[in-house]
Amino acid sequence: MSATWGKKIRYTIFGESHGKGIGITIDGLPPGFEIDLAEISKEMARRAPGRSPLATARTEKDAFTIYSGFVNGKTTGTPLCAIIENLNQKSTDYEAMNQKFRPGHADYSGYIKYNGFNDIRGGGHFSGRLTAPLVLAGAIGKQLLLQKNILIGAHIQRIGSVSAPQFDTVTIKPAVLAQLNNQEFAVLDPLIVEQMQQCILSAKSAGDSVGGIIETAAINLPAGLGDPFFDSLESTLTHLLFSIPGIKGVEFGAGFNFAEMCGSVANDAIYNQDGVIKTTTNHNGGILGGITNGMPLIFRVAIKPTPSINIEQHTVDSKGENVMIVVGGRHDPCIVPRAVPVVEAVTAMAILDIL
Amino acid sequence: MSATWGKKIRYTIFGESHGKGIGITIDGLPPGFEIDLAEISKEMARRAPGRSPLATARTEKDAFTIYSGFVNGKTTGTPLCAIIENLNQKSTDYEAMNQKFRPGHADYSGYIKYNGFNDIRGGGHFSGRLTAPLVLAGAIGKQLLLQKNILIGAHIQRIGSVSAPQFDTVTIKPAVLAQLNNQEFAVLDPLIVEQMQQCILSAKSAGDSVGGIIETAAINLPAGLGDPFFDSLESTLTHLLFSIPGIKGVEFGAGFNFAEMCGSVANDAIYNQDGVIKTTTNHNGGILGGITNGMPLIFRVAIKPTPSINIEQHTVDSKGENVMIVVGGRHDPCIVPRAVPVVEAVTAMAILDIL
Amino acid sequence: MSATWGKKIRYTIFGESHGKGIGITIDGLPPGFEIDLAEISKEMARRAPGRSPLATARTEKDAFTIYSGFVNGKTTGTPLCAIIENLNQKSTDYEAMNQKFRPGHADYSGYIKYNGFNDIRGGGHFSGRLTAPLVLAGAIGKQLLLQKNILIGAHIQRIGSVSAPQFDTVTIKPAVLAQLNNQEFAVLDPLIVEQMQQCILSAKSAGDSVGGIIETAAINLPAGLGDPFFDSLESTLTHLLFSIPGIKGVEFGAGFNFAEMCGSVANDAIYNQDGVIKTTTNHNGGILGGITNGMPLIFRVAIKPTPSINIEQHTVDSKGENVMIVVGGRHDPCIVPRAVPVVEAVTAMAILDIL
Amino acid sequence: MSATWGKKIRYTIFGESHGKGIGITIDGLPPGFEIDLAEISKEMARRAPGRSPLATARTEKDAFTIYSGFVNGKTTGTPLCAIIENLNQKSTDYEAMNQKFRPGHADYSGYIKYNGFNDIRGGGHFSGRLTAPLVLAGAIGKQLLLQKNILIGAHIQRIGSVSAPQFDTVTIKPAVLAQLNNQEFAVLDPLIVEQMQQCILSAKSAGDSVGGIIETAAINLPAGLGDPFFDSLESTLTHLLFSIPGIKGVEFGAGFNFAEMCGSVANDAIYNQDGVIKTTTNHNGGILGGITNGMPLIFRVAIKPTPSINIEQHTVDSKGENVMIVVGGRHDPCIVPRAVPVVEAVTAMAILDIL
Repeated sequence: MSATWGKKIRYTIFGESHGKGIGITIDGLPPGFEIDLAEISKEMARRAPGRSPLATARTEKDAFTIYSGFVNGKTTGTPLCAIIENLNQKSTDYEAMNQKFRPGHADYSGYIKYNGFNDIRGGGHFSGRLTAPLVLAGAIGKQLLLQKNILIGAHIQRIGSVSAPQFDTVTIKPAVLAQLNNQEFAVLDPLIVEQMQQCILSAKSAGDSVGGIIETAAINLPAGLGDPFFDSLESTLTHLLFSIPGIKGVEFGAGFNFAEMCGSVANDAIYNQDGVIKTTTNHNGGILGGITNGMPLIFRVAIKPTPSINIEQHTVDSKGENVMIVVGGRHDPCIVPRAVPVVEAVTAMAILDIL
Repeated sequence: MSATWGKKIRYTIFGESHGKGIGITIDGLPPGFEIDLAEISKEMARRAPGRSPLATARTEKDAFTIYSGFVNGKTTGTPLCAIIENLNQKSTDYEAMNQKFRPGHADYSGYIKYNGFNDIRGGGHFSGRLTAPLVLAGAIGKQLLLQKNILIGAHIQRIGSVSAPQFDTVTIKPAVLAQLNNQEFAVLDPLIVEQMQQCILSAKSAGDSVGGIIETAAINLPAGLGDPFFDSLESTLTHLLFSIPGIKGVEFGAGFNFAEMCGSVANDAIYNQDGVIKTTTNHNGGILGGITNGMPLIFRVAIKPTPSINIEQHTVDSKGENVMIVVGGRHDPCIVPRAVPVVEAVTAMAILDIL
Repeated sequence: MSATWGKKIRYTIFGESHGKGIGITIDGLPPGFEIDLAEISKEMARRAPGRSPLATARTEKDAFTIYSGFVNGKTTGTPLCAIIENLNQKSTDYEAMNQKFRPGHADYSGYIKYNGFNDIRGGGHFSGRLTAPLVLAGAIGKQLLLQKNILIGAHIQRIGSVSAPQFDTVTIKPAVLAQLNNQEFAVLDPLIVEQMQQCILSAKSAGDSVGGIIETAAINLPAGLGDPFFDSLESTLTHLLFSIPGIKGVEFGAGFNFAEMCGSVANDAIYNQDGVIKTTTNHNGGILGGITNGMPLIFRVAIKPTPSINIEQHTVDSKGENVMIVVGGRHDPCIVPRAVPVVEAVTAMAILDIL
Repeated sequence: MSATWGKKIRYTIFGESHGKGIGITIDGLPPGFEIDLAEISKEMARRAPGRSPLATARTEKDAFTIYSGFVNGKTTGTPLCAIIENLNQKSTDYEAMNQKFRPGHADYSGYIKYNGFNDIRGGGHFSGRLTAPLVLAGAIGKQLLLQKNILIGAHIQRIGSVSAPQFDTVTIKPAVLAQLNNQEFAVLDPLIVEQMQQCILSAKSAGDSVGGIIETAAINLPAGLGDPFFDSLESTLTHLLFSIPGIKGVEFGAGFNFAEMCGSVANDAIYNQDGVIKTTTNHNGGILGGITNGMPLIFRVAIKPTPSINIEQHTVDSKGENVMIVVGGRHDPCIVPRAVPVVEAVTAMAILDIL
C-alpha cells in the first residue's frame, strides 16, 4: 500500500506540493495520551523551509490542524487526522518547464507511471513537502516513546567531503540525543558546523547542490523487538527510510565496513554487568537476527544532492524531444539538514509500530 | 507479518534448521505457467552447503517436494507449497552450547523474544538454511520474469579487502548476467577469483570468517514500476534484502558515494535515443522517486562475516553467567558466495510482486 | 486495520460526528479518470440527513472538499483525500447524557475499548455520519464501474412487517437499477412505499424506531472475480457491509432459505445461450466457490432499528450506577432508507477492489 | 490475500483434495504454549469423513504432521506448519466428468478464474477437504482461548425443515458448550437428533442433499474487543465464516429478525449486577459498534445443500456444449454436521486474532 504503512499503528499520507493541503491519518494511537502540540510545532519547524540561507526560500509555516481523534488535549484512540494547508505555492516558477523532465527527479518515472496525469506542480505528490506529515507523526511517536524512556537523535555525519565524528555506539548519553534534537544544524562536533555550512553555501553559489550522510541512534530499546526474516527490524526501518525522497543507502552498525572485517572482530562480545546484558562493541547496531539486543540502535543513511540545480542540463520533454533545462524555482542547495528531523521521525514511527 | 511477505504474490516461509523440514507457500502465481524444475534445482544447488572447501561441511541435497498448486508440470494458480526435508542434522554439534549465547548470532535476542522456547538447534528458525525456500521461490520468479525478458544477476564485488570491478551501470548485456548465474563463484573479473578464495581460506585456517559485498543488477525492467513513499521500489526491495541473515547495508546506484557528489554530477542526464528514453549515467541505479526509469536496477548489499568462528569468545549463558564459548559444528568461513543466489532470488521475488 | 480497508484500492476513513470534520483517503485510483462531482453530490444527498420527516432533523449539506489526488477534473493516481466539515453539531443535545450508556449503541463497548477517552459527542467515531465518506468513495467507485458497464442498485425490501418484492435474480434490467438510484425511497413496487413510510412515521410518533432489510444487486460482473477461501467475494463484501453501523445480517442469493432446500432445487442448472454461460436459477446469488459466475450478484442485509429512541430505558452510567435514560437529540426513526446508498457504496468499493 | 488471513496471528493454507497433501502455516502463536495433540486429533475426527452413513464414504484419517514451530511439546513462537497427507484419493471417480461443470460447485467460476489450469480432481483447492487445516488451527486456538476461560460451541439448529431450539442468548453455561464439543451430532435438544438424521438419510436415499443452519456461541469474551468500522468483530468473523465452502448467510444476535423489531424491543437494557455490566436481553449477540460488550457472542450461519447429488442435471462442458451430468463419486448428503467443528474452528481463529 503506497500511501498507508504500519501494522499496529497505520499511517496514511496524502497531498501534493501545490494542492490544497497535505496530511496524514494515524490509526492505532492509544487513547488518553496527552499530546504536546507545541512540541509537534517545534519538530515541524526543524524541517520547515525558509528558515536559513542554507535552505529553499519558500516559506511555509507548516501550521497543522487536527481534524479528528483528539479531544480535550488527549488522543481518543480513533484515527487522528492532521492537515497542513499549502499557503505559499508559486506554481508559476514551475509552469514553464511543465513538459521537461528534470534530471534526478521523479518527473519521467512518474510521468510513465501516471500516464502524465499526476500533479507536477512543485513535484506534486513526490515533493519533499510530503515529509512534513511524517515529521508530525514522528513528533507524536517520540512523545509516546519518551514515556518508555526511548530516545531518538540524529546528526549530520557528512556533507560533501566534510565529515563529522560518529556516535560512540556503545554508550550514548540521553543528553547527547536531547541536544541534537534542539540543534538547528545538528552535528556531534560543533567545530565542524561552519565547515559543513560553507560546503553547502559554496555549492549554492555555484547553482549546484551537495549530498551527505545522517547518522541516527535510538537508546533504551528493550531487547527482543522485531522479528526474524520478513519483519526484521532492519526491514521495517529501511522500508520507511527509503520512503524519504533522496535517501539512496542505509547501513546498520558497521554496515558496509563489515565487508572488510573478520568475524573475530565483527562479533560483539557479550557480558553481564550488574544484571544487564551488554556487548563490549556494537558493530551490529543493536540488532541481531532482526531483533533488538538492548544495545543502542545505530544506522546511517546516504542522501543524494538535491536534483534541482540552477545549471543547464540535458533532458527530454514529454514529446520525447532532446532539450536543455535550467530548473528555476526555489530549492535547497542541500536537503541533509532539513532531513535530520525527518529521519528521526520515521525512526519513531517504525519503533512505535513494532513495540 | 514476519513469515508472510508480498502484496500481489504472497510468500510464507516456515521451518527450523534441525526440525522436520523447511518450506514456503507461494500464493498468487499465474495459472498455467510451466515451471522448469531442473532450473529450480540448479538454483538451489548454487546455495546448497557442502559443495566446496569454501563452505560448511554439512551436506544437504536440498531436494524439494511440491505439495500443491502444481499439476501436470504447470502452476494451477492456487497456493504452491514446496517443502525441503532436513536430512543431515547433527544436533549434537550444538547441544553442548545450548545455553551459551553465540556472539554475533540471534541467540540472545531470540532468547528474549521467545522466552527461551525457540528451537536453538542449528540456529533454529534464524538459520541461514531458511534461505533455501527463498531461492526456490526466486527460481520460479526468475522464470516468470524471463518471459518478460527481465534478467537478474549478482556477483561478489568484495571479500574482505579484495575488491572486484562493479557493473557498468549504464549498459549491462544479458550475456553477462546469464554467465554470473552459471558461475560457481560469481565475480566480474575471473582473475580476482583466486585472490578472493584465498582470503576466505586464510580466514578459515585461522578459525575465523570474513565478510563481503554483493552487487546485483536487473535489466529490461519497464519504466513506471514502484510507488512514491511507502512502497518505493527501494523500500520493497530492501524489506526483503534485510530479511536475509547477515545483510547489514543496502545502497542503490551511487549509494553512499552520493554524499560526496554535487547535483550537477549526481543527476543522470536524460536523452532520447531512437525512441528509447535513457540516461547518460545511472547514479540513481534505475530508480527515481521510488519508481523505475527503465535503466538497469543496480544495488549493493554488505554482508557481515559469519559469526560462527572457532575462536574462543566472551559471552553470557542463559543463567546470566559470564562464560567463554568456542562455537563448534560445521559452518561457512564466508557466507558471501552462497548468498549470491539468495540475493538474486529475493530480487526476483520483489520485482514479481510489484510487476 | 480498523480505519483502512482494501488491497488494490485502499480506503482510510477518519472523523467524529461533532469534531472538525470527517473524511476519507482513497489510494489506488487509476490516473486520468474524470470524476463527475455533481454525481458524487447527488449520491451524498441520498444519504444526507434532514431531508424528510422520515429522517433526523439534523441538516448537514455534506459538502465535500477534495484536498489531493484530483487536478483539472481528473484523478492524478496519487491518494485522493476528501473532507466533509461538520457544520451543524448540537453537542448540547448529548451533553446531559454524556455519562449514561445508551442501550443498543456502542457507548459501553466503546467506553471499555477506549478507556473513556473516545469522543462521545453525537456517537463520535461510531456515528452513522461516518458513512458519508463511504458514500463519497462509493460514488467514485460507481463511476469507475460504469465504464465497465457494471451497475449496482439497492432497494428497501422490508420495513418492520411491511415487505416489498425481491429482485428477479436471473434477469435484472439496467433500467431497474438506474431507477432505484434515482428514487428517494427506493422500493421495487411503488405501491408499497406509502405503507412502509407509514410504518416509520408510526414508530416515530411513538418515540420508537424500526428496522428493515435492504436487497442489493450488481449486474454485468464478469465471471472469475474473487478468490477461494480467505478472499471469497462473500468474505470481501461482508467485511465492508458489517462495517456499516446497524447491519446485523448478510445473506447471498437464497441465503438462509438454503437451509430448507434440497440440492436438486438449490443447484443452479447451467446452460449455454448463444455463447453466454448462464444459470436457469440464481440461488447462489452470482457467486460459486467465492468467485463470480457471471450471473447477477444478489444479497440482502438486515438492519436493526435505530437504537436512539425517545422512550425511557434502563441503563448504567460510567460510574456503574443503574439509571434511567431518555435519549434526546435528533435521530432517525428508521435508518434503512438512508442506508440504501451506503450499502450501494460499499458494494462499489468492494467490487472495485477485486476487479 | 486469498490463502493468508489474520493480523496478529496469520494463517496460510494450501493444498488440493487429490494432491500430495494439504496444510496450514500458523504464524504468531505465543512461544512456550503446550499443545494437546490428542485434543487436535479429536477435533479433526469430528470433521473427518467416513465416520457415519450420514457422511461421504471417503475415509481419511486426517493424521497431521507438524513440520515446524513445535519442539518438546511446546510452541516455539516461530511459524508452525502442519501437513495432512492425502491418502484415500479416488480420482477416477471424477475423471469422467473432468470437463463438465458441476452445478452449484465452483467448477465453472474456477475454470474462468484459472483459465482451466486449476486442479479439478475432487474439487481441487475448492474442496471442503481444505477445512481440515482450519479445524487444526482452530483446535490450537481453542486451547489458547481456554486459558482465558473463553469457550466456543456450536450446534445444528436446523436441517431442512427440522428445527432445534436456539441458545438462551443471555445465559450460556460452560457445560452446555463443552457437551456440544463432545457430541457427534450436536443439537441442543437430543430428542430432535433422530428427526434431523432421518431428514438427511431421506435426502441421501433420493440421491439428493439438504442444507441447514448452525448456531454458534462464545462466552467469557471480555468487553472491548473489536474495532469500529472496517474491523468490526462482525467483519472479522464473517470474513472467515464466508471462507467456509457452502456458507451463504451470517446473522448476529437477532439478525434478520431485527427487521421486524422496534428499537424499544431490540435495544438490550443495560444493568449492573454485583459489579458486572450485563444486558437483560442479548439481541445484539454480544457486539455493539463492532466491539464486544461482555455478553455471549451469538451468530448463525446458513449452509447450502451439498451440490454433489446423484440426480441428473443440466450443465455445460468446457467446450461450451449443453450436456447432462450425474455427479458420481462419494459425497455428503448434508455437510452441516461436519461443518459444526469447522465453524467453531474459524470462530476460535478470529477471536484469537483480535484478542
